[in-house]
Amino acid sequence: MRTERHSKHGAPVTMRDIAKEAGVSVATVSHVVNNKQGARIGEETRQRVHEAIDLLGYRTNALAKTLSVGSSRFIGLVADAIATTPFAGQIIHGAQDEAWKHGYVLLVANIDGNKAAENDAIAMMLEHQVRGILYSTWYHREIEVPESLHQTDTVLVDCFSTGSGLPAVVPDEEQGGKAATQELIDAGHQRIAFINTTTPSPALTGRLAGYRSALESSGLEFDASLVISAVPEQEGGYEVTSAIIASGASAVFCHNDRVAMGLYDGLRVRGLDVPKDIAVVGFDNQEVIAAHLRPPLTTVALPHYEIGAAGIRVLLGLEREQDNALYLINCPAIKRQSV
Amino acid sequence: MRTERHSKHGAPVTMRDIAKEAGVSVATVSHVVNNKQGARIGEETRQRVHEAIDLLGYRTNALAKTLSVGSSRFIGLVADAIATTPFAGQIIHGAQDEAWKHGYVLLVANIDGNKAAENDAIAMMLEHQVRGILYSTWYHREIEVPESLHQTDTVLVDCFSTGSGLPAVVPDEEQGGKAATQELIDAGHQRIAFINTTTPSPALTGRLAGYRSALESSGLEFDASLVISAVPEQEGGYEVTSAIIASGASAVFCHNDRVAMGLYDGLRVRGLDVPKDIAVVGFDNQEVIAAHLRPPLTTVALPHYEIGAAGIRVLLGLEREQDNALYLINCPAIKRQSV
Repeated sequence: MRTERHSKHGAPVTMRDIAKEAGVSVATVSHVVNNKQGARIGEETRQRVHEAIDLLGYRTNALAKTLSVGSSRFIGLVADAIATTPFAGQIIHGAQDEAWKHGYVLLVANIDGNKAAENDAIAMMLEHQVRGILYSTWYHREIEVPESLHQTDTVLVDCFSTGSGLPAVVPDEEQGGKAATQELIDAGHQRIAFINTTTPSPALTGRLAGYRSALESSGLEFDASLVISAVPEQEGGYEVTSAIIASGASAVFCHNDRVAMGLYDGLRVRGLDVPKDIAVVGFDNQEVIAAHLRPPLTTVALPHYEIGAAGIRVLLGLEREQDNALYLINCPAIKRQSV
Repeated sequence: MRTERHSKHGAPVTMRDIAKEAGVSVATVSHVVNNKQGARIGEETRQRVHEAIDLLGYRTNALAKTLSVGSSRFIGLVADAIATTPFAGQIIHGAQDEAWKHGYVLLVANIDGNKAAENDAIAMMLEHQVRGILYSTWYHREIEVPESLHQTDTVLVDCFSTGSGLPAVVPDEEQGGKAATQELIDAGHQRIAFINTTTPSPALTGRLAGYRSALESSGLEFDASLVISAVPEQEGGYEVTSAIIASGASAVFCHNDRVAMGLYDGLRVRGLDVPKDIAVVGFDNQEVIAAHLRPPLTTVALPHYEIGAAGIRVLLGLEREQDNALYLINCPAIKRQSV
């Protein structure tokens, strides 16, 4: 029987399929099919690989293979700002792991807000007959969908576009805000300030809604004077330190870890101790900051890895469909020593 | 004349070549060749694109094109730790910009220290007939070259392998260490401490050599008691604060920005001011830290973007060859307010 030219899921046979069938590593298959000189591969192993190739009908050229079925084993990922934060990198990592699991390779293009580069990247991906494209931003926001994305299956990742009809995978900001506030309530705090961002965004509204919701669930009254706005960077947190102290709060939920880092400095120069005098919770779990402040910062993780992985699953039809095409990913609390 | 089936550099014709010839954007070419419905493209423009296609012999399928010449327009980039620092992202960004400039697309694989994933990634790239592979690490170190990399042109990026014969593009640690120290000397300091890492690495030896060299060039004596070792994280910098003060130094060159951040905290709890009481210089220019400390940190940049871009140029034979195949990239000083 030589009819089984494709793997079970109808896709072209990959080295990975051969490796699985033969019970060897992908590297071994590569050595055998490329007839690599000097690779120490036993005759029996070589035989097993050839038998698997005979059975599955593998062709050694991935590109020829693609041509024979008319679409490729590529998935495109368009990302912004990969160079300035680790966030885009985590999305890419999650997407890649998940893509590989299903036999796909990621074509990654970084566009850094450059529209011409974006158009080029999408054209390149279409030219390579990608299975579909993940379009991702490094922080959660509403976007205008580039026209050319409608030429292939597209999933929005860490962003969304109302009315576009495109599925979107985003962090659950409200649940995250609730989780952050709950950490402080569980530690016995009743007067909890919230340093929110000044940037209009789903994070601004979602985390505020989560903060209110946690207070209400615990029978604590929402006091608008405890919500203080700040530029979402270290400088912003530092500058509102006096306002926080004046508010009489015993605990603070900070919009992100950078704000918490600035607040730490502000409290320190006033001789106040975290968490003895004031407890602090951040948001993002930006490792290089949160894990290394003094004391290490309790925070809520933005699950970029999971968002990237879920994006692939949505593209491949492996996630249960959502009514509104919005896939919310859970933001878990990360407990350290600032509460 | 329909013989010119390839662009000047002998590579298959890309949409980019067509766009250049026709004087339109790549997106416009994509719309025309894909016969996109609803794209508002004037008849004259459409005509110009078709004439360029006739002239250059473009074929609409990038994969078919690759097959016809036997090698692809792909360059592979194998990266570790893309998910935890922005460094790998900057390397990818630089490599991508440079690759695109020359008509190549990057296939990026993240391996995070996993040998099986690494073998899979390299096998996948070979299978796609890449023009070559950049193998990169997120911090500068000596590596063992995976056997399969010898099956294609390989350039090591931010790492090297003595005796492998492979070209390596790495930061000039010694020049960087000298530049950092020089910032402090130029500000009038004569007793300058150096907090070095405890991790054996080219950064440890190179930055130390640069520190000594700067002192010597200025007629300042090297005092081994001023070199203090610390774990290269915030905690390490914090812990050696007393030793720094005891040393009588008026200025400190820190092995990296994270160490400087910890030292800042240590100085602050002792009521000391940066730079009035002690001047501080970092290394890395890890933006989210260095630019946002109080005061913002003067540091030396690890030029990851340039390292990625240079890697592509070396692969394509566009850099002047180095005798020892080691390409050193300059680490520039970034002046802020801590000196």
